[in-house]
Amino acid sequence: MNIRPLQDRILVQPIREKEVRKGGIIIPDSAKDAPTEGRVKAVGPGRIGEDGKRVKPDVKVGDKVLYSKYGGTEVKIDAEDFLLMREDDILGVIDSK
Amino acid sequence: MNIRPLQDRILVQPIREKEVRKGGIIIPDSAKDAPTEGRVKAVGPGRIGEDGKRVKPDVKVGDKVLYSKYGGTEVKIDAEDFLLMREDDILGVIDSK
Amino acid sequence: MNIRPLQDRILVQPIREKEVRKGGIIIPDSAKDAPTEGRVKAVGPGRIGEDGKRVKPDVKVGDKVLYSKYGGTEVKIDAEDFLLMREDDILGVIDSK
Amino acid sequence: MNIRPLQDRILVQPIREKEVRKGGIIIPDSAKDAPTEGRVKAVGPGRIGEDGKRVKPDVKVGDKVLYSKYGGTEVKIDAEDFLLMREDDILGVIDSK
Amino acid sequence: MNIRPLQDRILVQPIREKEVRKGGIIIPDSAKDAPTEGRVKAVGPGRIGEDGKRVKPDVKVGDKVLYSKYGGTEVKIDAEDFLLMREDDILGVIDSK
Amino acid sequence: MNIRPLQDRILVQPIREKEVRKGGIIIPDSAKDAPTEGRVKAVGPGRIGEDGKRVKPDVKVGDKVLYSKYGGTEVKIDAEDFLLMREDDILGVIDSK
Amino acid sequence: MNIRPLQDRILVQPIREKEVRKGGIIIPDSAKDAPTEGRVKAVGPGRIGEDGKRVKPDVKVGDKVLYSKYGGTEVKIDAEDFLLMREDDILGVIDSK
Repeated sequence: MNIRPLQDRILVQPIREKEVRKGGIIIPDSAKDAPTEGRVKAVGPGRIGEDGKRVKPDVKVGDKVLYSKYGGTEVKIDAEDFLLMREDDILGVIDSK
Repeated sequence: MNIRPLQDRILVQPIREKEVRKGGIIIPDSAKDAPTEGRVKAVGPGRIGEDGKRVKPDVKVGDKVLYSKYGGTEVKIDAEDFLLMREDDILGVIDSK
Repeated sequence: MNIRPLQDRILVQPIREKEVRKGGIIIPDSAKDAPTEGRVKAVGPGRIGEDGKRVKPDVKVGDKVLYSKYGGTEVKIDAEDFLLMREDDILGVIDSK
Repeated sequence: MNIRPLQDRILVQPIREKEVRKGGIIIPDSAKDAPTEGRVKAVGPGRIGEDGKRVKPDVKVGDKVLYSKYGGTEVKIDAEDFLLMREDDILGVIDSK
Repeated sequence: MNIRPLQDRILVQPIREKEVRKGGIIIPDSAKDAPTEGRVKAVGPGRIGEDGKRVKPDVKVGDKVLYSKYGGTEVKIDAEDFLLMREDDILGVIDSK
Repeated sequence: MNIRPLQDRILVQPIREKEVRKGGIIIPDSAKDAPTEGRVKAVGPGRIGEDGKRVKPDVKVGDKVLYSKYGGTEVKIDAEDFLLMREDDILGVIDSK
Repeated sequence: MNIRPLQDRILVQPIREKEVRKGGIIIPDSAKDAPTEGRVKAVGPGRIGEDGKRVKPDVKVGDKVLYSKYGGTEVKIDAEDFLLMREDDILGVIDSK
């Protein structure tokens, strides 16, 4: 079962805290808008810009991303947790190299 | 009796909880903005973009969609419940394959 | 006596509850933003789009429409009740065929 | 003494209640945003649209109009009451034929 | 000492009440947004429109104008009171002919 | 040490009250949004307009300006006080000739 | 481990107070929106403008910048503190020459 996001929406699978701590980025618990790490699972075709053309999202399936904790909507697919968020809720791509 | 949605409005028939549970996507009850599943029954011609051209909706009749629980307006047609919502309230299309 | 709506305004005559119930669409009383049925009596020429051109409304005189209960302004013409609303307050056109 | 409205502003002289009742349109007192009738006395050249061109108002001097009760600013010219409002506060033109 | 207004700002010198009463326009004290009369002393070059071009103001130095009482910022130049306001706070030009 | 403002930001050095009183513009203490005088020290390259082109600011280094008291952010450079504000917070240029 | 900011986001490493005091810019503690100094570590490709083209940020990696204290989101990379902010939260570039 798959979800095909519409517009500029991105399907992200959150990465568990444990895995994050090992990877090196630790988010301070006190931070009010602390972002969270996740893996991109599906990417919408992009929003329609004011000039009538698609604005293709800057992330692709497989990217490890940092996203705003308050962005997105939780969905459960085949017993796993995912988030559907707008591309604008994604702050950056993490290159773990 | 039919409803022809205007602009970027979409007519969606909600899918009952039971059917959803069987299908595999379970929405946690605690989730504040939990989306809901439905079937697209009618699609408007699309809104007029800033360049004066129609922006055709990205969903079509028959699509199984995930939509924001707070979007749309309830209408009852021939004793059945439907929702009239803007395309923007639809988060994604579910491919049940 | 006639009213010629300006811009994207539409003159709608509400259809009485009784007539609606017979027609088949019943609006639940509990619904907070329940739409109402009406008949289009006059249509404005449309708003001026951002590209400087008229955006012609998608409804025409005689259409049976579903509109947002909170849209529009009440006016009484020759002792009959009408509503002047923006086209955006009209959710869809009802094809009673 | 004359006022030349700027932009999309319209100078309207309200029509007294008595005259309105005779003319046939009666505004229910209970209506929260009940519009009022008036006569257009002066019309601004129109606002500058997003494409840099004037958007000429859709009303002309002499038109009998229905306007939003809460729109506009009261001014007194030579002891008579007038309203200066934006064209958008005018709902429609009344053809009394 | 002179002030050269920026963008679409206009420098207006208010006309004293006494002078206004003689001139014929009397503003009711009760009116919440009652406009006031003034004389244009300096005009900015105009704002930059969305198409990147200047939108030249519709008033000129010497014009007697009606302006919104709540618009503008008070400044005192050589012991005299002036107002710096956006062109949009000016409702109309008074032709006293 | 220098600050190069970004976009449409302007670096302004406030002129002390004493100097202002001698220069002739006195701001009434009671005025809620009373503007203040200052000297332009650095000018950003301008914001990017909606047509994708720079909109060059209308002030230049050395200009004596009147600015909104509530605009801008205070910074201290080499023990002196400055303000970084958007061009829109500058009301006008003072020609002291 | 690197973060590649999306859109017009900038990765900034705050400069410690001590270092700032030596450099000459002292931010008054009382200032409500006092900006802070930092070093640009990564720059996004820029937002898509209304004409559909990228608007390249005006800062580059290595720039010493003054940024709004309330802008941005804190992230910790390899035990060091960084901020991910929009270019608009950066007020100016400091030339320490």
